[in-house]
Amino acid sequence: MRILLQFPEGLKKEALAYAQKYETEGHEVLLSGASCYGACDLAIEEAMAVGADKITHFGHAPFIKKKLLIEVEYVEWHIDVDLDKFEKAIKELKSDKIALATTVQHIHQLNEMKKILEKNGKKVFVSKGPLAAYPGQVLGCDAGAISSVVKNSDAIVFVGEGHFHPLAIDIDPDKPVFIIHPKSGQIRKINDEIEKLRKKRKGAILKAAYAKVFGIIVSTKPGQFNLAVAEKIKKELSLLGKRAEIIVSNELSPLALNNFISFDCYIVTACPRIADDTEAFGKPVLNLKMFSDLVSILRETKA
Amino acid sequence: MRILLQFPEGLKKEALAYAQKYETEGHEVLLSGASCYGACDLAIEEAMAVGADKITHFGHAPFIKKKLLIEVEYVEWHIDVDLDKFEKAIKELKSDKIALATTVQHIHQLNEMKKILEKNGKKVFVSKGPLAAYPGQVLGCDAGAISSVVKNSDAIVFVGEGHFHPLAIDIDPDKPVFIIHPKSGQIRKINDEIEKLRKKRKGAILKAAYAKVFGIIVSTKPGQFNLAVAEKIKKELSLLGKRAEIIVSNELSPLALNNFISFDCYIVTACPRIADDTEAFGKPVLNLKMFSDLVSILRETKA
Repeated sequence: MRILLQFPEGLKKEALAYAQKYETEGHEVLLSGASCYGACDLAIEEAMAVGADKITHFGHAPFIKKKLLIEVEYVEWHIDVDLDKFEKAIKELKSDKIALATTVQHIHQLNEMKKILEKNGKKVFVSKGPLAAYPGQVLGCDAGAISSVVKNSDAIVFVGEGHFHPLAIDIDPDKPVFIIHPKSGQIRKINDEIEKLRKKRKGAILKAAYAKVFGIIVSTKPGQFNLAVAEKIKKELSLLGKRAEIIVSNELSPLALNNFISFDCYIVTACPRIADDTEAFGKPVLNLKMFSDLVSILRETKA
Repeated sequence: MRILLQFPEGLKKEALAYAQKYETEGHEVLLSGASCYGACDLAIEEAMAVGADKITHFGHAPFIKKKLLIEVEYVEWHIDVDLDKFEKAIKELKSDKIALATTVQHIHQLNEMKKILEKNGKKVFVSKGPLAAYPGQVLGCDAGAISSVVKNSDAIVFVGEGHFHPLAIDIDPDKPVFIIHPKSGQIRKINDEIEKLRKKRKGAILKAAYAKVFGIIVSTKPGQFNLAVAEKIKKELSLLGKRAEIIVSNELSPLALNNFISFDCYIVTACPRIADDTEAFGKPVLNLKMFSDLVSILRETKA
């Protein structure tokens, strides 16, 4: 079988060993060389180009529901949480009602973490986001695991290494959000960072209200493609007296996009988190939620 | 008709005006947002994803001979050379036999430039490279317009803005290579730069001789795709006792590639000029010509 192996950035260092393993088993192996940002980002184009029979995609849980042009096998990558350190960390929590979430890497221990919290007298709330594969799993684009139980809880606990995933948690600033590091057990509150991101988004929306020419971005990444919404936005902007063009690309390069010069603002129909990188683009970058806020502002101004 | 407009970086600033023009004519227009590096780099994936009827590709002459999945219209972009300044510039040339070349932007004036040279007592040699659309046209990957006439000439004159294209000219260092700027008429000799690039390539090949694990890079860009050669190289390296894996990607990101960690050297079957950027990769990057030099060295060492 001809297999294209795809790894997200943090797992690419494992690629050679896996290539060797599959080759020993008699398969023809090729590696996807592009950046991979998530379960939405499947190397379909590469696999089709080389005539692969299958993509083996490491590090993410199944995500794309639509039928793809090629078979995709998702191989999750689990990393154990140090549960003793986790227990030490949660003893610092003053709240009694906890919304608990993590990323797919640690999802296999979610139940154990829940039990540890309960043993320590906490009531634990776990829920499943609409795009997630598992209850308690937060994706960069889906913190539904939190938002649907947040009203019942006094605090949010997210177990994971970075702050990329928990920054997806968009809640009232009065509920504390804690990250617990899976290895060190270090616990820190990230409400300031969430608030900072929220302010940055607000700033981008206000700046976008002055934009005259909009670039509406569509990504060809299989789990991010959304031409229909882009076309709808183009019409909507036109009705609001704005000029807009649809820009199609797989990866988004701020450099390449800014060579267009003419666009005052980008609306991203692809990964909503691209809007976090508004600085890299030097122009306001709005995701769909931010765009709907912009439309409200523009309608008010027009009215 | 649904048209995907594609512009190289330097022409992206014209995109909005053209989008407007085609829309006024009743077409549905989308813009390709990715970087575009040449006539080899067609936005087929994007066009297919959005169901475009046609790609209109600006700035390059026809290049790809194989049948593509979608209709491609090439729209050349001509920029006039200041012929008075050109004439002033060539008066500085001491050589009498000139090999003349330019890029596709100025190819429409090649004959006029040739006549000016002849009027000034020069014998002019113009030839066509195997991948070029026109006689006298140098591509980043094909300086055949020069190399096939270089033996008859005393000097090479290239008319163009940057040194990317003339650096493709790989000739004996004793023949002077001049660039004449199309607008300013500034003339400068670039033999030192060619020599520097040659030395850099030699250094990369010598470093590659110590590599144990090779990444053989295949690009999915329609005019750069060459899986068959990559597979041949993998076998060749295996016979030489080296480990190799094939890496497939559209765009090559040094960052993403270096996340693999394990590769000591990259062999590029795609654009041969990627090898010029060996510094960005932090590892030797060899094009096919450089790879055949490496094989000679490895065979000698083995013998």
